[in-house]
Amino acid sequence: MMEMSGQFIVFEGIEGGGKSTQIEKTQQWLLAGGLGKSVAVVRTREPGGTELGKKLRSMLLESHNFDLDNRSELLLYAADRAQHVNQFLKPQLAQGKIVLCDRFIDSTTAYQGYGRGLDLDLITQLNKIASCGLESDLTLWLDVAVETGLERVKQRGKRDRLEQADLSFHHRVRSGYAKLAMQFPERIVKIDANGTEEQVQQQIRTILRSV
Amino acid sequence: MMEMSGQFIVFEGIEGGGKSTQIEKTQQWLLAGGLGKSVAVVRTREPGGTELGKKLRSMLLESHNFDLDNRSELLLYAADRAQHVNQFLKPQLAQGKIVLCDRFIDSTTAYQGYGRGLDLDLITQLNKIASCGLESDLTLWLDVAVETGLERVKQRGKRDRLEQADLSFHHRVRSGYAKLAMQFPERIVKIDANGTEEQVQQQIRTILRSV
Repeated sequence: MMEMSGQFIVFEGIEGGGKSTQIEKTQQWLLAGGLGKSVAVVRTREPGGTELGKKLRSMLLESHNFDLDNRSELLLYAADRAQHVNQFLKPQLAQGKIVLCDRFIDSTTAYQGYGRGLDLDLITQLNKIASCGLESDLTLWLDVAVETGLERVKQRGKRDRLEQADLSFHHRVRSGYAKLAMQFPERIVKIDANGTEEQVQQQIRTILRSV
Repeated sequence: MMEMSGQFIVFEGIEGGGKSTQIEKTQQWLLAGGLGKSVAVVRTREPGGTELGKKLRSMLLESHNFDLDNRSELLLYAADRAQHVNQFLKPQLAQGKIVLCDRFIDSTTAYQGYGRGLDLDLITQLNKIASCGLESDLTLWLDVAVETGLERVKQRGKRDRLEQADLSFHHRVRSGYAKLAMQFPERIVKIDANGTEEQVQQQIRTILRSV
């Protein structure tokens, strides 16, 4: 058995909720001794947390000159995850590190399940296969209003495949996260991500101090 | 419901069994009226039967500068398959074509399951997800002695990731195919592929005339 002494903290939510910024700020705060002790902290993300994952990420998020089948898409995310779990997450956690991860299994459920309407049992089955037994110690759901989130995304001039999807899709994804938060209250904590970066960061620090 | 009036014929077996050659000869024979009627015949393969599949095939079979996790590998094959089934195989079969396919679900069971020792239940589960309900009408298992097969591969100077694997691995794969043939006698027909190309082709024609 591999010893898992680290802490696996996942950041979730729709686009424009500030995940990247908050992960960076949280890492800086933890490294500066925010928890009153010296800790090793690494950042990573899905898809794209490994060499294989970077290739898969560009397949998944960039424009295609072919239609990507829904089920195939789901399996590519799962392949990215299995590689990430076994080659990066488990080894880092075994070294006692705090791992801050941008998206994990809840993204698959929220986007492919609630968003695209793929079968939720199939997704649960694939999440189980892909995560190889790894669960987050804490999942911070950065909840932002859909319009606010998409407006932020627009302002940074970023466009990728997911962000071109329509407003109602993002509403379905957001209510997907709400359902997950009700289903797994012991693991998922909701953060109000409509405020300023500083306000959101303060909420995160409060939660991390309390766990 | 999509009408499936075509015929889905899969060629299986270890390297050096002559799948590519036999698929080509079979296609020519069928197009020349071998079954005494006019038929439309297409060839395809897994992995790599779609645009996405070509990218995945190079990831899977070319040398890597990273370790590919076993479970991730399995999920990439499944992603290739789902795309192939939904974007190519089902539409072609719905048009009434005969589809000759180089490898399908039995390859995953034989190579990843019996060869690499991954969990057979997991593979069955993923084969079911990836094949989206599609089963072959006929699977021709081109059975060649491991040493003969690998010697043929060596002579054509071809090297890829699978073909560098060791002899005992290929023995396990071959007995995997034998087990599958016993398990699914209604679908899998064994062909002795140790003889000349002409001898093997004659056996295939005899079987196709009888189905």
